[in-house]
Amino acid sequence: MNNQPVRYKILSILKENNQIFTSGEEISKTFNLSRTAIWKHIQELKKEGYEIFSVPKKGYQIQKSPDVLTEEEVSRYLKTTDFARDYCYYVSLGSTNTIAKQIAESSNAPEGTVIVAEEQTEGKGRMGRQWVSLKNKGIYMSIITRPKIPINRAPQITLMLATVVARFISNHYHVPAKIKWPNDILIHQKKVCGILVEMSSDLDSIHYAILGIGINLNQTAGELNMIENQHYMPTSIRNETDIVVNRRVCFANLLLELERAYQAFIENGFTAFKDLWEEYAYSIGKEITVHTHSSIIQGTLLGITDQGALSLVGKDGETQVIYSGEIVL
Amino acid sequence: MNNQPVRYKILSILKENNQIFTSGEEISKTFNLSRTAIWKHIQELKKEGYEIFSVPKKGYQIQKSPDVLTEEEVSRYLKTTDFARDYCYYVSLGSTNTIAKQIAESSNAPEGTVIVAEEQTEGKGRMGRQWVSLKNKGIYMSIITRPKIPINRAPQITLMLATVVARFISNHYHVPAKIKWPNDILIHQKKVCGILVEMSSDLDSIHYAILGIGINLNQTAGELNMIENQHYMPTSIRNETDIVVNRRVCFANLLLELERAYQAFIENGFTAFKDLWEEYAYSIGKEITVHTHSSIIQGTLLGITDQGALSLVGKDGETQVIYSGEIVL
Repeated sequence: MNNQPVRYKILSILKENNQIFTSGEEISKTFNLSRTAIWKHIQELKKEGYEIFSVPKKGYQIQKSPDVLTEEEVSRYLKTTDFARDYCYYVSLGSTNTIAKQIAESSNAPEGTVIVAEEQTEGKGRMGRQWVSLKNKGIYMSIITRPKIPINRAPQITLMLATVVARFISNHYHVPAKIKWPNDILIHQKKVCGILVEMSSDLDSIHYAILGIGINLNQTAGELNMIENQHYMPTSIRNETDIVVNRRVCFANLLLELERAYQAFIENGFTAFKDLWEEYAYSIGKEITVHTHSSIIQGTLLGITDQGALSLVGKDGETQVIYSGEIVL
Repeated sequence: MNNQPVRYKILSILKENNQIFTSGEEISKTFNLSRTAIWKHIQELKKEGYEIFSVPKKGYQIQKSPDVLTEEEVSRYLKTTDFARDYCYYVSLGSTNTIAKQIAESSNAPEGTVIVAEEQTEGKGRMGRQWVSLKNKGIYMSIITRPKIPINRAPQITLMLATVVARFISNHYHVPAKIKWPNDILIHQKKVCGILVEMSSDLDSIHYAILGIGINLNQTAGELNMIENQHYMPTSIRNETDIVVNRRVCFANLLLELERAYQAFIENGFTAFKDLWEEYAYSIGKEITVHTHSSIIQGTLLGITDQGALSLVGKDGETQVIYSGEIVL
């Protein structure tokens, strides 16, 4: 944080003295900058959403910080050790997964590097589908990891993440979040979160895996109605609970749970998550229809295999294992 | 081939008339170029290794083509339909796999695009190891594919390729080529070929898989002795058979077998290759030692599983399945 922009250093002073006015002259002496320069930095902060009173002869006083996911705003809530130690924040970008892949490919970005954006203009879902990411309304992030696991276990990563997010939403917002295999989280059959894990690997090892997570938090019913998507009905935490979520706090808490789960998964494997997955699974024990690349399969959902495949039992009593496909609601 | 360089158009004329001299004047009229320009193109061809007689007042006559893997030289032997339809030739580069990944990532390079180099300065093997690629002595290539198979089947690609190469070497050069799981081909316990499949994927699909194959053909015993490598003893077809291999013909024949095998694998799956793999496997039915990430395992090699894992039976009679590791010679 030493090389943070001057405006954030000024912000720190205002935050420390948020009960009183801090004079422009004092700030100007601290940073050896002109009063005009200080005024310009304050304007920058206002543009970023900080509400700052400025009263002639008294100085500046901060009233309110915006609910943005800048490192400045998020860092005081973060309790992770590895995740988000390296942090890349974007107001707007195409897709956090795409940027994360470029960073992972071209540098030795450490495990846990987080790319987060207030808005994605080309948010991605499975099978090249779109994920609509309204500005400042959700959490759209990608985490760069370098898991030392065989590639046949890679599909477990998605299931582990889905388990963590479903549990997180259920516990924090008291709504029945359910995992729709393989990578969606639903509340009342509507999609609140999508997960997209992309990786680069050879036969022996995963070079990197990008954990992409998009969660709808504060989208209103009106905003959700405007999302055109033929693949799912969207919802948000706010739409389901009437709670306006503090995104910074939500982000920091979620990231901590993700880090702990990821570390447990790498150290102890998938077994613990398998049971948890089945606890949060959508339609377990019920009749479901799955569309695969080549066929339509009906049966009772038993659970998942150790490899993350869906396990169904058909009317003929035979168990089927499905590696790739989609549950039809 | 219409946008081929002028020198290759001149070369075609010389090849068509290789029993006689073709006058510089005639060539100069055909291409509407000066005699000096033609002479310069001939010098270029000589630099590339073409032996061309030039006799005053008679003209030019080609004596011999170099054994290089340019599109010009390879195309008349190629019988593939998809593989090498797009062809990138390099005299020297770092690694064909690295370039192939860049091409696959940044463009819609079609399935079967081939990257080939006369020399790799940073040839890669498994686990970040080096693969020494002496200039004009072997085949060093990468094929861009976009297989529509689930990622848990990806390790089968390496095994399928190993099967094809082992059979190819055995049939064409009458030496006992054996597959050392997962990705090496040995002759008399020395390494003649390495395979490195790298891929980019998400949970559902492989974005691209790069099939990297390096085969030692014409390295002499002296050249092989100079290769410093602590991981394997190298050999070449020439070293084992005293045959100096026509690399162009070898390359074209191998590529045809690879294309047919790849198409069969995508259409019909791995089953046919599994049996063939076991036919060419090194040490099948014998006692072997495998180093894995975490342990050393001894047992009798039974074969491979459908997923491409090694199957061993220990002295206690229990079967072990190994997904990643290395057979110690």
